[in-house]
Amino acid sequence: MAESNWQIRLAARPSGAPKDSDFELVETPMPTPGEGEMLVRVAYLSLDPYMRGRMNDAPSYAPPVAIGEVMVGGAVGEVMESKADGFADGDIVEGRLGWQSHAVARPEDVRKVDPALAPISTSVGVLGMPGLTAYFGLLDVGQLAPGQTVVVSAASGAVGAVVGQIARIKGCRAVGIAGSDEKVAYVTGELGFDACINYRTQDVSAALAEAAPGGVDVYFDNVGGPVTDAVFNHINRRARIVICGQISQYNLTEPDLGPRNLRFLIVHRARIEGFLVFDYQDRYGEGLVALAGWIADGRLKYREDIAEGLESAPAAFRGMLEGRNFGKQLVRVGAEPAGRAAGG
Amino acid sequence: MAESNWQIRLAARPSGAPKDSDFELVETPMPTPGEGEMLVRVAYLSLDPYMRGRMNDAPSYAPPVAIGEVMVGGAVGEVMESKADGFADGDIVEGRLGWQSHAVARPEDVRKVDPALAPISTSVGVLGMPGLTAYFGLLDVGQLAPGQTVVVSAASGAVGAVVGQIARIKGCRAVGIAGSDEKVAYVTGELGFDACINYRTQDVSAALAEAAPGGVDVYFDNVGGPVTDAVFNHINRRARIVICGQISQYNLTEPDLGPRNLRFLIVHRARIEGFLVFDYQDRYGEGLVALAGWIADGRLKYREDIAEGLESAPAAFRGMLEGRNFGKQLVRVGAEPAGRAAGG
Repeated sequence: MAESNWQIRLAARPSGAPKDSDFELVETPMPTPGEGEMLVRVAYLSLDPYMRGRMNDAPSYAPPVAIGEVMVGGAVGEVMESKADGFADGDIVEGRLGWQSHAVARPEDVRKVDPALAPISTSVGVLGMPGLTAYFGLLDVGQLAPGQTVVVSAASGAVGAVVGQIARIKGCRAVGIAGSDEKVAYVTGELGFDACINYRTQDVSAALAEAAPGGVDVYFDNVGGPVTDAVFNHINRRARIVICGQISQYNLTEPDLGPRNLRFLIVHRARIEGFLVFDYQDRYGEGLVALAGWIADGRLKYREDIAEGLESAPAAFRGMLEGRNFGKQLVRVGAEPAGRAAGG
Repeated sequence: MAESNWQIRLAARPSGAPKDSDFELVETPMPTPGEGEMLVRVAYLSLDPYMRGRMNDAPSYAPPVAIGEVMVGGAVGEVMESKADGFADGDIVEGRLGWQSHAVARPEDVRKVDPALAPISTSVGVLGMPGLTAYFGLLDVGQLAPGQTVVVSAASGAVGAVVGQIARIKGCRAVGIAGSDEKVAYVTGELGFDACINYRTQDVSAALAEAAPGGVDVYFDNVGGPVTDAVFNHINRRARIVICGQISQYNLTEPDLGPRNLRFLIVHRARIEGFLVFDYQDRYGEGLVALAGWIADGRLKYREDIAEGLESAPAAFRGMLEGRNFGKQLVRVGAEPAGRAAGG
């Protein structure tokens, strides 16, 4: 076993895009699990946009990460030493283990992952928080009905890719918005969306008139800003705008201004609603069964963008906020657990 | 019977605040009802903010008024000559009769008003569209629950005054926002709101921190703009922001810019929803019974601001958009029907 635990801690509160100096890579002694705890070796760390909010000292749904504290984050890894009932050495677990190579966790902090079902990295992706976010956001908050049109931004990302594929599975038209021609080709080709718009090179509103000629019934918003303004021009009566993320806003140092468009909500009797997947915790099982079933029958595909080594996490995170990742952003922190590869 | 019908027609599409020259007062021959129709003499015309939208040639929930066409508007009056089954001369009817002294209507265009229940002017106010807008907007769209805090803008207006009083009746805290100290005194005194803020002289966000110390569960928005921005700072988890009107925006010639604040919806899992009272037509009876009951037992009060004469309608309408009215804005177009005063 390694003798040290490596951690990335928050060194300073970023102003704008996080800089290298906002993080600190620290070597610390390997922690020892106490009674009822387990030591976990992290294999994959998940990078997700919400983490940017945790770096700010502003009121939110969760307290900020303190300066000097290990960055929060979901991760999946292998139990190295269990003193917790129901967990054995070698078990694969997923939970909020943080940006570090090893973590001590209690049973209530983690869930067991079955490595025979799918690669364990999916437990922080399509079969984890991002997949569940897509599932409950689209079906529960978005109240999707067959034959409707769904538009999703960040369409090749961890959440967006699942949103559009579920829309297709549910008999709906899926229109993506993404940031490169390569992503657009992937979304319409590999993922089977009906259409996809490149927001960097196209006029989103004009392109939507063609891609969603019947208007938009559900807009699943991961980005906010001008892309979202453009979608507003196309909402149908009783449209649902599901606010999952606003990644275009997270690095801003001054509040951004945009057109006031709430009067459109009256005209269309439409709704904008924000949600957090954590509020669906008691229904995660339902979501995971559905997602795993669609993966098994080949209707739900996913793509991972893996940065190598814990030390690459700050740069990979910065890149994700700028849309430089292509697929679910992961960091490979340690080796794949032995004999635990998919189907192994 | 008068020999002429007087009409106010839309002469030009306003740019910004409607000018006198955007309207035209026209004397036309008295219309004659055909088979199945009735001739109605208008007593009170209702002026409502939605009319501003009808003057624009822009897509909305209803087609715009054509140039040269009589302005649309709800009104109440007396049947002078009925050739319609179920309606007799002398009946009081309310409906979309337009900005004119007389109108020909069909039974499906109007509803009968019982003048023994309340003054007939209330049929276009607290017992009409504005009252029903408050009722369904607060209780159905806003999903109000006892003990919650309701904030309403344009609090002394036709809709806002009813919203706050229903909130109190339902066991909630009612906080108003209004545009003069006189209105504030009326809202907290006569109407019994718990608090009211003068948005012209106070910092709305700072004042809300005191007036709604437990945060805001329902914001019933009639105005939009900076007042609405300020309320956003105080919304509670699962808050409902009900978009009824955006009067601050209606006269703008360029789209207004405001802070992008959709990320607050995620933090608070909150919702913004627009609605139109017309979508509740099949439940109007339920609403009217409730509102009439509260008027009868003295818990629901109302105030009218009556402009004299059809020719005063354009100026009164312009004033209403600027908040110069104090209470429900009416225009007295003709005399109160004989022997039909309240209780008569």
